[in-house]
Amino acid sequence: MRRSERIALISSMLSKNPNKIISLNHFSQWLGAAKSSISEDIDIIKTAYKNSGQGEITTLPGAAGGVRYRTKRSVDDINVFLNDLSDTLRDQRRIIPGGYLYMTDIMFSPEYSSIIGEIFAQIFIDKAPTHVLTVETKGIPIALMTAKALNVPMVVARRDSRVTEGPSVGISYVSGSGQKIHNMSLAKRALPENSRVLIIDDFMKGGGTAQGMTELVGEFKAQVVGIAMVMATAVPKEKLVSDFTTLLVLEGIDVQKGEINISINDKLL
Amino acid sequence: MRRSERIALISSMLSKNPNKIISLNHFSQWLGAAKSSISEDIDIIKTAYKNSGQGEITTLPGAAGGVRYRTKRSVDDINVFLNDLSDTLRDQRRIIPGGYLYMTDIMFSPEYSSIIGEIFAQIFIDKAPTHVLTVETKGIPIALMTAKALNVPMVVARRDSRVTEGPSVGISYVSGSGQKIHNMSLAKRALPENSRVLIIDDFMKGGGTAQGMTELVGEFKAQVVGIAMVMATAVPKEKLVSDFTTLLVLEGIDVQKGEINISINDKLL
Repeated sequence: MRRSERIALISSMLSKNPNKIISLNHFSQWLGAAKSSISEDIDIIKTAYKNSGQGEITTLPGAAGGVRYRTKRSVDDINVFLNDLSDTLRDQRRIIPGGYLYMTDIMFSPEYSSIIGEIFAQIFIDKAPTHVLTVETKGIPIALMTAKALNVPMVVARRDSRVTEGPSVGISYVSGSGQKIHNMSLAKRALPENSRVLIIDDFMKGGGTAQGMTELVGEFKAQVVGIAMVMATAVPKEKLVSDFTTLLVLEGIDVQKGEINISINDKLL
Repeated sequence: MRRSERIALISSMLSKNPNKIISLNHFSQWLGAAKSSISEDIDIIKTAYKNSGQGEITTLPGAAGGVRYRTKRSVDDINVFLNDLSDTLRDQRRIIPGGYLYMTDIMFSPEYSSIIGEIFAQIFIDKAPTHVLTVETKGIPIALMTAKALNVPMVVARRDSRVTEGPSVGISYVSGSGQKIHNMSLAKRALPENSRVLIIDDFMKGGGTAQGMTELVGEFKAQVVGIAMVMATAVPKEKLVSDFTTLLVLEGIDVQKGEINISINDKLL
């Protein structure tokens, strides 16, 4: 096999498996080439990715070592993406009676959720999360793509406990403008003790749901290492969780004028 | 930029964007190389992918043409994956009181859901689905990864209609051993008329939920082009939907002996 063919295959495998350590031995056996040749292939890929902003390839030494790929977007690239996203969301046809903003198509889009997941992973990777947690339903695609980019499992709290998941731990929490009491629960076997949990959701208003997830994580004797949303409302300014990251801020919706006022968080990195 | 560096970048972009047509112009401008050189780069990638079973690269001529990548697993590779998956699921610790099988960790795993999504995409790509539909909650990750592999949007039917999604269409359906009546609804704006819908879910017993989704698709004047599950029970043999594809069959669970009997569908392709 020619070097250029090996590079095509190694590049594809790394791109499809972000944050996974793949040993040189694996590549060597798969491609029938000496480890020294594979090493040179990887140097070429590393340089190409770096120079074009496609991400970072790290070589980790030792018995458990190998090669690891992570996406790494520049601040400029992230701002371009967030500006595009907020332009899409400002379309006045997205205003739902009652003054809500229709975002479901974006949250469920494979393309948007992949990019958002990669951005969340980039922001929180140094916190070494071992699990990504969300609560059903709309946050699931973004949580999954974040988990994929981090190469960790996703766990999903349910609104009701499910007979098909065995014993569960449940909590009650207050959320929404109606100040309603909700329940959420998570199967006991889903989250080990001492897990480092990154909480992901689509939208935050008062922060009750995020606070509920934080409490749930505590019940599992695990630790929250970050809370991230795609969008948070500007009002109320004080949320029930103190430390969270949002990509976008919903400043307000003027239903009469058909205006949706969204700002981007330009201090993400 | 050297040819090998261009190949690293093109291979990465194609791998991350399955079933998306990317024009040679795009690569040419991005990489600062003539279209003839890009064409040669792509031929090398095509050969490498083909010879190692990494997927299929197609060059489409014309103004709307370009290059398209699709994963394409061999029958043998799929059978190896399904055997691994069923071995994992046969672990007797997965038996939940009541005789259920704990599969949530697999369904929510970024790694498993990616591969399953790619397999579903491969099976149904010739039906040209324009949307992937599931009903919340456990099927969402697999539906999302199928949609990603097909490069189409995912839509998710909700158990209740949501005030934040605007007008919706709802149906009632009967499912589960308890023969309970459930509701599912989908925002009117989520699915255009004449869409070609691939229905994806994690598990099928009687087929009531799949039948409900089929009825919902009909309400949108859209068409079902396929129904696929990760696992279906062997009993009842007659399901409420006649034509569906399952990766695995749950033959039965012997709670006393701690035995889980799963067979794989070896006639997928």
